[in-house]
Amino acid sequence: MSTLISVRSEDIRFPTSLSLDGSDAVNVAPDYSAAYVVIETSAGDCGHGLVFTSGRGNDIMAHAIQSLGQQLLGDDVESVLDDMGGLSRRLTRDSQFRWLGPEKGIIHMAAGALLNAMWDLRAKRENVPLWLLLARMPVDDLVDLIDFSHITDALTPDEARAILQAGQEGRESRIAELLRDGYPAYTTSPGWLGYSDEKLVRLSREAVAEGFGMIKLKVAGDLDDDKRRLALVREAIGDHPVSVDANQKWEIDEAIEWMNELAEYKPFWIEEPISADDVLGHLDVKRGIEPIRVATGELVHSRIAFKQLLKLGAIDVMQIDSTRVAGVNENLANLLLAAKFGVPVCPHAGGVGLCEIVQHLSFFDYAVVSRTQEGRFIEYVDHLHEHFVDPVVIESGRYLAPSKPGFSSEMVASSRAEWSYPDGAGWRGLDPAARTADTRQLAERFSPYQ
Amino acid sequence: MSTLISVRSEDIRFPTSLSLDGSDAVNVAPDYSAAYVVIETSAGDCGHGLVFTSGRGNDIMAHAIQSLGQQLLGDDVESVLDDMGGLSRRLTRDSQFRWLGPEKGIIHMAAGALLNAMWDLRAKRENVPLWLLLARMPVDDLVDLIDFSHITDALTPDEARAILQAGQEGRESRIAELLRDGYPAYTTSPGWLGYSDEKLVRLSREAVAEGFGMIKLKVAGDLDDDKRRLALVREAIGDHPVSVDANQKWEIDEAIEWMNELAEYKPFWIEEPISADDVLGHLDVKRGIEPIRVATGELVHSRIAFKQLLKLGAIDVMQIDSTRVAGVNENLANLLLAAKFGVPVCPHAGGVGLCEIVQHLSFFDYAVVSRTQEGRFIEYVDHLHEHFVDPVVIESGRYLAPSKPGFSSEMVASSRAEWSYPDGAGWRGLDPAARTADTRQLAERFSPYQ
Repeated sequence: MSTLISVRSEDIRFPTSLSLDGSDAVNVAPDYSAAYVVIETSAGDCGHGLVFTSGRGNDIMAHAIQSLGQQLLGDDVESVLDDMGGLSRRLTRDSQFRWLGPEKGIIHMAAGALLNAMWDLRAKRENVPLWLLLARMPVDDLVDLIDFSHITDALTPDEARAILQAGQEGRESRIAELLRDGYPAYTTSPGWLGYSDEKLVRLSREAVAEGFGMIKLKVAGDLDDDKRRLALVREAIGDHPVSVDANQKWEIDEAIEWMNELAEYKPFWIEEPISADDVLGHLDVKRGIEPIRVATGELVHSRIAFKQLLKLGAIDVMQIDSTRVAGVNENLANLLLAAKFGVPVCPHAGGVGLCEIVQHLSFFDYAVVSRTQEGRFIEYVDHLHEHFVDPVVIESGRYLAPSKPGFSSEMVASSRAEWSYPDGAGWRGLDPAARTADTRQLAERFSPYQ
Repeated sequence: MSTLISVRSEDIRFPTSLSLDGSDAVNVAPDYSAAYVVIETSAGDCGHGLVFTSGRGNDIMAHAIQSLGQQLLGDDVESVLDDMGGLSRRLTRDSQFRWLGPEKGIIHMAAGALLNAMWDLRAKRENVPLWLLLARMPVDDLVDLIDFSHITDALTPDEARAILQAGQEGRESRIAELLRDGYPAYTTSPGWLGYSDEKLVRLSREAVAEGFGMIKLKVAGDLDDDKRRLALVREAIGDHPVSVDANQKWEIDEAIEWMNELAEYKPFWIEEPISADDVLGHLDVKRGIEPIRVATGELVHSRIAFKQLLKLGAIDVMQIDSTRVAGVNENLANLLLAAKFGVPVCPHAGGVGLCEIVQHLSFFDYAVVSRTQEGRFIEYVDHLHEHFVDPVVIESGRYLAPSKPGFSSEMVASSRAEWSYPDGAGWRGLDPAARTADTRQLAERFSPYQ
């Protein structure tokens, strides 16, 4: 028996704005960051979790994790790990904290970091990678993990059970296939708005040569630029799937007009054409640009929002994010909702640790939920993986199956120390403007709002 | 000319969970709290703003305000006050902070507190109550305050201008009427779930005798209890309007069944039957319980969410909240959306300071937007007003017009010191369990989730 003796959060930031890696029409100069948490037990073992953020405000996120996490101190670890559904409800339904959401934004992501850290601990204790722990969990135990409140009109516990029950057939052969062949990836590495045409073309060719099933370009800064960049990419890589991503820059009518201008370049999907909060608007956009697929999800705040997008038939691709919602538990609901409505899940990743964490969910999805990889890829961006203890491994454009025990969410201790903000050695070495994360000048230079 | 020299936030909490004031089916034992901010200028004057919260997590909210507010230090005050629309966009669109929302939850409410504090400062400098400042502002200046992004499909700047232009006719006579007669109120004071039947009946009779146009009861704990309490109230006050409030406790089908059971008591509206995030669900509920009105808003996170509820015709009553969204600016958008779609606005209030702040918006609404008080009331709860420098004045069930310069958002300095959490004198005088705000036992006793 062990008790939970500490919950410590950390503010870790990388000065990515200096190179404009990760730049798009809305996120003009992010400093990729992690609000990181270590949960420690009296047995001496730990669970690690994080929330990805864009820099400024990472301190608030770390504070939220710390504050919400104090509720867990002194808890019996085995009891908590045995009832992760109960933990999920405690963290998202606390009668005082919930006012700060409810179930959205900072407080919800904090619940997700704590839940994911406990999942990391549980998988380490069971000496198995998380995806495999979930894939082999009894169906009723999986159903118990899910908070069905506010979604029973779209997915009941019985419907969830039936989907998972069907997923038991052929499970072990799909697991063997995943262990052998991995899972398809696409990459966004070539397409950041801050990159030169030469770099865009070179990286696009390389991505296709490396075997990625799709590449993605950021758009929505300037229509002529978008056309020029898409034409260059089409010239370089032919008919290979290319998606575009507007990061919510447009109004509904603007999205329809702009995408009809880009239709000749045959984009595979348009991602985040409008505000992710505009459920009804997605249906208008979808109808206005068919047959181009509509994708969204990295900023969809909960299963309740996803439920509506699916019920309305407003999206063709669902992009779950591993640190936007309340952890593994809520993403199980999201995966089952997608399966119920027959929409493929192509997770958002990149940032800090998002590839490492979210891959477990797609591997699980293939093993016992969707049971297909058709039209599905996990996003891949080649940033910052060296800071993780169990970094993703990409081969021939596919994620190889995570094999180490845990959730792959643990960062290297020396990286955490070096990029601790604002006093880590990495930040001390930068000039004062960068060290204070005052990227205002860069932001103004690239701002779409002028 | 003056510069902005400090932004200081404070964590102020009141131990209201000890008396169960404010208890409902979801908010079972709140400690009514304010994440408070004072913005100080080099001229020596200040603006005051706050976000209402339920207790735990108020520290996170205060941190968010402090962190987001640091962007303003050193700014030229007059330039900022002259371009409050620009300030709104700076605070909600910062390319790094926005990832934490975007436009929802803690980071969005923090932007609201800062904006509202600047509005308080501006109204004090112009020596006028805020509602009157807004009511007499040139139409084009009002339109410039609003961020139309993600709502132009429902409300364009030209449509907003036309509504406000029409509102100029008869404006001064409506202002005179407001100054003379005030604005109708309803009260929730009798109906908290934690109150005894005797207290419920007594307070209901008193409320009607005092002239309140409606009273509101919390429901959704237990159907038999709800029927008994509604029957008692109907017996005590006859046909007087009585609304009920489920605080998002139900699923869609449950809401429809439960409300059909309560229909015989003729509720004026059902408030928050389901999750405020479930836009589509509100339409199902509305169709399932007609002619009972459906109301929501205190947890509707932005103009984008309200836009959809209105476009879909899913609500009959829109309940804006003064500290849930990005301040005065976003609530101007909300009021204009409501006017466009012909839905009455009945603001949520209560908590800490919500009555004081939101009254300004309804007075403005009547002066130049909706130009009617039909079917409209501002919520009133008789808690904690003594802690405000310019507390609301209720006479014969109506809010009297705020007359002091500013936004009525300033708290009494001694109250702020006494209830500063956790070290204020008020908290030091409580027993340790209360002082640490560990109301877990109370919460469990009243939890609807067992």
